[in-house]
Amino acid sequence: MSQHTVAAFDEELTELAGWIAEMGGLAERMLVSAVTALARIDTDLAQTVIADDYRLDAAQRRIEENGVAIIARRQPMARDLREIVAAMRISSDLERVGDLAKNIAKRVIAINGQYQSQRLVLGVEHISEIALEQLKFVLDAYTARDEVAARVVRERDGEIDALYTSLFRELLTYMMEDPRNITFCTHLLFCAKNIERIGDHATNIAESIHYLATGEQLGPDRPKHDEFEATSP
Amino acid sequence: MSQHTVAAFDEELTELAGWIAEMGGLAERMLVSAVTALARIDTDLAQTVIADDYRLDAAQRRIEENGVAIIARRQPMARDLREIVAAMRISSDLERVGDLAKNIAKRVIAINGQYQSQRLVLGVEHISEIALEQLKFVLDAYTARDEVAARVVRERDGEIDALYTSLFRELLTYMMEDPRNITFCTHLLFCAKNIERIGDHATNIAESIHYLATGEQLGPDRPKHDEFEATSP
Repeated sequence: MSQHTVAAFDEELTELAGWIAEMGGLAERMLVSAVTALARIDTDLAQTVIADDYRLDAAQRRIEENGVAIIARRQPMARDLREIVAAMRISSDLERVGDLAKNIAKRVIAINGQYQSQRLVLGVEHISEIALEQLKFVLDAYTARDEVAARVVRERDGEIDALYTSLFRELLTYMMEDPRNITFCTHLLFCAKNIERIGDHATNIAESIHYLATGEQLGPDRPKHDEFEATSP
Repeated sequence: MSQHTVAAFDEELTELAGWIAEMGGLAERMLVSAVTALARIDTDLAQTVIADDYRLDAAQRRIEENGVAIIARRQPMARDLREIVAAMRISSDLERVGDLAKNIAKRVIAINGQYQSQRLVLGVEHISEIALEQLKFVLDAYTARDEVAARVVRERDGEIDALYTSLFRELLTYMMEDPRNITFCTHLLFCAKNIERIGDHATNIAESIHYLATGEQLGPDRPKHDEFEATSP
């Protein structure tokens, strides 16, 4: 490629990475707002999360369209190609994080007016803090192109899974203790599951960073400990 | 492109479409096996679903890698480019369908040995039949490049959502009636949710077919009726 072409290409890659950073910031804010809305049963805040999801969907579509156009126009090889593929994969994970946050927000609106006990939400808040840390950490690692992140985030995902397992068991117990808790706890179970899956998306992003940096694909054989252990015989 | 290049390109597209057809067949079988395993609490059958998921993941990765390589090598335009982008999107949806079927299979193993009542599974079987029909219909539409599918599948997704809403309410009732049902019904709720999401992926695939045929993106504003209505005040 000529100097001019290279400079233009670099600009395109920088632009893609900038959009990812914007998506990441928005996805983080949506998660925080959704869980805050859940803790306070704040339906107005929940509505803002639902409204924001459109922006994340549009950003993902834009990154995909631009990524494909750049590949067709520039025919990049090796690391340059991986930059674009990784950006498309990461945007897809962030779009899913937004969907999961939106789903929590929709539950806040459904829960509103139901029998509820705020102390039951504590476990969900705790697991969401760790998921948020994972998301922040992995997005910083993407900005720094720091492949070591993959290992750290993968290991920490086990912590989220273990917390989720314990929360699953706890919420079932509340339901058995008092049937009035059943509807509320069912929604909390789904919220907790969504947050556990946000953790999985953070791990996916870490794997995309590893692929970007090394060209090596990490397989799907990562350690998984989830609620199935909680209820197995 | 030269005649020779065009023929080679057509072969590549045919190969991609063939892999999608294989993925689709496998995803359908996984859904059927997962729900059969659930109805019979057949842990051996559940294990085969879990094992099959690796094949779907590998197929998706292969389609993505080949799609990107073809775009870089051929620089396709318009409909040719959309063929590849649609194949990559559809493979991603089918990979998710496999994940959701696997998740049901893992629950079968968790449920095994728990208190359970088979009549509670009937609703889940029913919704899964419709999701399977949607999946078959949309995969046939992809083979036929029949864009009308998009509208049909979108409309029918509302039926799955309505069934899911009613099933959600029904399972909550069973839990309130008899606390021994709580663990089993919680797993059934998650299974039903997974199937409802498989229906969403069928709709996504329909939208990819529409995009492939027309170049027009269908927005995320499709009608949604889900369980939030079941528990809203």
